[in-house]
Amino acid sequence: MTRIEVNLEKKPSTSYEIYIGQNILDRMGLVITKKNWASRYIIITDSNVSPLHGDRVQAALKEMGLKVDQIDFPAGEASKNIQTIFSIIHRMIEVGADRTSALIALGGGVVGDITGFVASIYMRGIPYIQVPTTLLAQVDSSIGGKTAIDLPQGKNILGTFHQPKGVFIDLAFLKTLPPREFGNGLAEIVKCGIIDDPELLSLLEKEAEAIRNQDMILLEKIIARTCRIKKGIVEIDEMETGLRRILNFGHTIGHAIEAESGYSISHGEAVSVGMVAAANISDRLKYLPSEDRERIRSLIRMIGLTDRIPPTLSTDGVSSRIKRDKKKEGDIVRFVLLKKIGVPFVNGGVPEALVRETIEALKK
Amino acid sequence: MTRIEVNLEKKPSTSYEIYIGQNILDRMGLVITKKNWASRYIIITDSNVSPLHGDRVQAALKEMGLKVDQIDFPAGEASKNIQTIFSIIHRMIEVGADRTSALIALGGGVVGDITGFVASIYMRGIPYIQVPTTLLAQVDSSIGGKTAIDLPQGKNILGTFHQPKGVFIDLAFLKTLPPREFGNGLAEIVKCGIIDDPELLSLLEKEAEAIRNQDMILLEKIIARTCRIKKGIVEIDEMETGLRRILNFGHTIGHAIEAESGYSISHGEAVSVGMVAAANISDRLKYLPSEDRERIRSLIRMIGLTDRIPPTLSTDGVSSRIKRDKKKEGDIVRFVLLKKIGVPFVNGGVPEALVRETIEALKK
Repeated sequence: MTRIEVNLEKKPSTSYEIYIGQNILDRMGLVITKKNWASRYIIITDSNVSPLHGDRVQAALKEMGLKVDQIDFPAGEASKNIQTIFSIIHRMIEVGADRTSALIALGGGVVGDITGFVASIYMRGIPYIQVPTTLLAQVDSSIGGKTAIDLPQGKNILGTFHQPKGVFIDLAFLKTLPPREFGNGLAEIVKCGIIDDPELLSLLEKEAEAIRNQDMILLEKIIARTCRIKKGIVEIDEMETGLRRILNFGHTIGHAIEAESGYSISHGEAVSVGMVAAANISDRLKYLPSEDRERIRSLIRMIGLTDRIPPTLSTDGVSSRIKRDKKKEGDIVRFVLLKKIGVPFVNGGVPEALVRETIEALKK
Repeated sequence: MTRIEVNLEKKPSTSYEIYIGQNILDRMGLVITKKNWASRYIIITDSNVSPLHGDRVQAALKEMGLKVDQIDFPAGEASKNIQTIFSIIHRMIEVGADRTSALIALGGGVVGDITGFVASIYMRGIPYIQVPTTLLAQVDSSIGGKTAIDLPQGKNILGTFHQPKGVFIDLAFLKTLPPREFGNGLAEIVKCGIIDDPELLSLLEKEAEAIRNQDMILLEKIIARTCRIKKGIVEIDEMETGLRRILNFGHTIGHAIEAESGYSISHGEAVSVGMVAAANISDRLKYLPSEDRERIRSLIRMIGLTDRIPPTLSTDGVSSRIKRDKKKEGDIVRFVLLKKIGVPFVNGGVPEALVRETIEALKK
């Protein structure tokens, strides 16, 4: 089991540990008991994860004599809305949750975002614990305290920064993960290699096949490495006012593609082509050497991800969604570009014509 | 004009200043321009305050070349709900508010609570400024970053800790304040004297009549003094995990009385009798000398507040509301009691019979 400590502003109150390993639920029960974060725990999970893992997680905590409840909601991004929030809050009030209660987010990114948001606004904030069950949530959304829900007007319009008390990453959960979900996580791992860790990138290139075949020893290694990169960035810039923006590499165009496809293109596919697009723009603007651009594109294909979008996807649609992206500041759309592998920067001056040309090129 | 700096964890990012004076709107415009907290400002206010002060505040900001919008909602505690939150958020999206926008809470406690809550959850948190127009908001809710909304199941069930960027207390607003509202603020000032500042208490006793007549020079002095007490407590305990609880002196019974009366008893009246009740309990449990208990009761009457509740108010009702109070931890109701003037403490062991007897005594 690997353990990583996250320090925010060097305050013990907002620092926490990430535990990574195979079959660590019993260890998790021990840690939660020892840390004594709350008088009782409420697991928040969805209709996919609940039948697969709900009972086992409950059992691991009850085994330690902890008081545990569970609240389920329907699986899927469509649940990331205010109705779900209020139905969870009403159930929490019914079971008598108070300021000494804590939540446990058991599931993927949607479960983590929703649980973190509820924990951040319930009685001015109660503790919560992340138990991510997807590869994407394990290397991305479970670390960093970003919480969010969607409104009809857009994704993640409401949200908070609320750090978890602890993150427990059990690789055993990955065995029940659909391939598409696995790809979503892989894209994020590739991203971290590109923006911050050339050695990780080399490892991914060397072991591409073993990773596609979900070699667990190797996965623990690359998950831990990716978590360390993520936590290093989050520590320096908790509130995403500066450095943390580089984590959006591939996401500005990626999010627009994902949304424009009506979410038929997965997050991992969208971020993969988004990274290819950002590398292409970096090359066209004479920042990134062409061989680095090709290396990125080649790894993405090798590892089983995609560098293409369907020709039917509207370039107008993607382009106008980019302009509406919530990360725009004032009237400028900021892109994360590359100077070389491991050296990203934020650029506010990409001509719209180049963005459109780049989107068109993804269709070929 | 008086200026007070609040330091949270000694971080510049969460420290802010409180500006206190008469007719300081122009100065406020200057400070906001100089601090450059946002690319644009949206005033959030209610249907009472908007016609009285909306135009003047807008003018003071526009005078400095700042971009200003205003969103109004119906005045009153009944607006402190999720419908109001979402109607404000929809208007913000309509006018194009983004992460570089800031809110200005112009009004009493309800406006501050709502505005702070919206600011804390909009795009993971945007800056806001407090411009409290009631005496209560000036000495209490505008300082400390507590935000909240009510649910049908109870008051302040949802909320966050989100510190304002600055607090501007203009005494000129008090001239349009109804007497009942003035009393709400006075009760809070008396409370701060009781729990933390015997000198303030003596000043209130000596100048009770001038204060009732709203002598502005004197008011600036006692408001600044009360703000300093409040900020000192908030600095030590931002998240209300310990010391900050002493600010609840008089509030556990007070809130229950206020709610049980269907809010026909004002907050100030309820807290006043709540303080008398807490002093009585402190005396009965042999903590507080009887002469201190009498001093508290006498000041409350002298300054124009009340030490009585209507005989028709249900003791059962008040008592069961106390037990449901959100500040209970586990199954114990905690009361803030007094050892002497200026020395409060948190007590978890007040027998229910004594609480009921104390409530009954308030009817005589």
